[in-house]
Amino acid sequence: MRVRYKPWAEDYLKDHPDLVDMDGTHAGKMTEWFDKTQPIYIEIGSGMGQFITTLAAKHPEINFVSMEREKSVMYKVLDKVKELELTNLKMICNDAIELNEYFKDGEVSRIYLNFSDPWPKKRHAKRRLTYHTFLALYEQILKDDGEIHFKTDNRGLFAFSLESMSQYGMYFTKLNLNLHEEDDEDNILTEYEKKFSEKGSRIYRMEAKFHKNK
Amino acid sequence: MRVRYKPWAEDYLKDHPDLVDMDGTHAGKMTEWFDKTQPIYIEIGSGMGQFITTLAAKHPEINFVSMEREKSVMYKVLDKVKELELTNLKMICNDAIELNEYFKDGEVSRIYLNFSDPWPKKRHAKRRLTYHTFLALYEQILKDDGEIHFKTDNRGLFAFSLESMSQYGMYFTKLNLNLHEEDDEDNILTEYEKKFSEKGSRIYRMEAKFHKNK
Repeated sequence: MRVRYKPWAEDYLKDHPDLVDMDGTHAGKMTEWFDKTQPIYIEIGSGMGQFITTLAAKHPEINFVSMEREKSVMYKVLDKVKELELTNLKMICNDAIELNEYFKDGEVSRIYLNFSDPWPKKRHAKRRLTYHTFLALYEQILKDDGEIHFKTDNRGLFAFSLESMSQYGMYFTKLNLNLHEEDDEDNILTEYEKKFSEKGSRIYRMEAKFHKNK
Repeated sequence: MRVRYKPWAEDYLKDHPDLVDMDGTHAGKMTEWFDKTQPIYIEIGSGMGQFITTLAAKHPEINFVSMEREKSVMYKVLDKVKELELTNLKMICNDAIELNEYFKDGEVSRIYLNFSDPWPKKRHAKRRLTYHTFLALYEQILKDDGEIHFKTDNRGLFAFSLESMSQYGMYFTKLNLNLHEEDDEDNILTEYEKKFSEKGSRIYRMEAKFHKNK
């Protein structure tokens, strides 16, 4: 996503330490940060937050974490969290590469990746959030039966992800090669998805797990 | 494929025992049937044979086997084999379920599945050629590093196959979610593919292997 720099966003986020971790204060103590101890679902790269805030409002029995490194986008997630008065959503302002600084092994039940940057150039493959080094991070923080839910309109990124994840030793439990023609009822649209789907782009989606005996 | 019954097809095939195995004569002795000992690639459900005969003509260094149960289609493969004077292509007239009657464990290097019957009804899932019982047959006759190459225009069958194969413990080494827009140079079209691609249907393709330590 192209982001216009907003100089005031950092101060705004810093003003809400109860909702936003800017500096690793809660690293290794994420479960403790929430009011209730319940399953943790995280979204990496939450963009403007439509997806995760809608989900959090629908599922008070789950603790949600929004991880986003762009302050100039993240302030919109904070706006929504405040507006909806969500108590089951915390935000981490940091890069995905730092995931296991925040979460203990097996602490997370589900990871959402929605419309991640496709990094289409081959020499940038390592930056894709389904590159094997990232999968290793996810495997570490996910419970044994934990899931990754991945959604994109980028055909190349989806094909790459199916290859990368299966090669790493993951398997797919649910797959849609044209989501909006198939099964829409539980789908929560992101801002990006709404825009691109209306333009006629296909949305690809999968749910994946790690083979235990790989 | 809908097939018009051709009463004379059986006799025509029987008249060519050097090219067509109608009754398991060569079961367990497939390698020995060929003039040269070289890698074996098989296609399950060859239809009218455009794909495998073109491939066999291009690759004299490979032994090809066309497996097809419909006599009223298979005669067209035989026509092409005779016309091209192929010595590296044999035909088996039988059902895929009998595969390991014909091939010894690890005897096969590659299996092609092209535009297999999608069996779209859930209660027919067991008949799909990527159902786990078929994968078990393929695993048995394939070499350790053997490959399955799969191509279809049926989105549902492709999604099912990605799930089924990854759950079984396979991984994907090459994946195309819109083949004719991506990488066409080595693609040999089947009759069916040509027709459907011209109508604007997407063609999906994958290459897959078995995890050794699954």
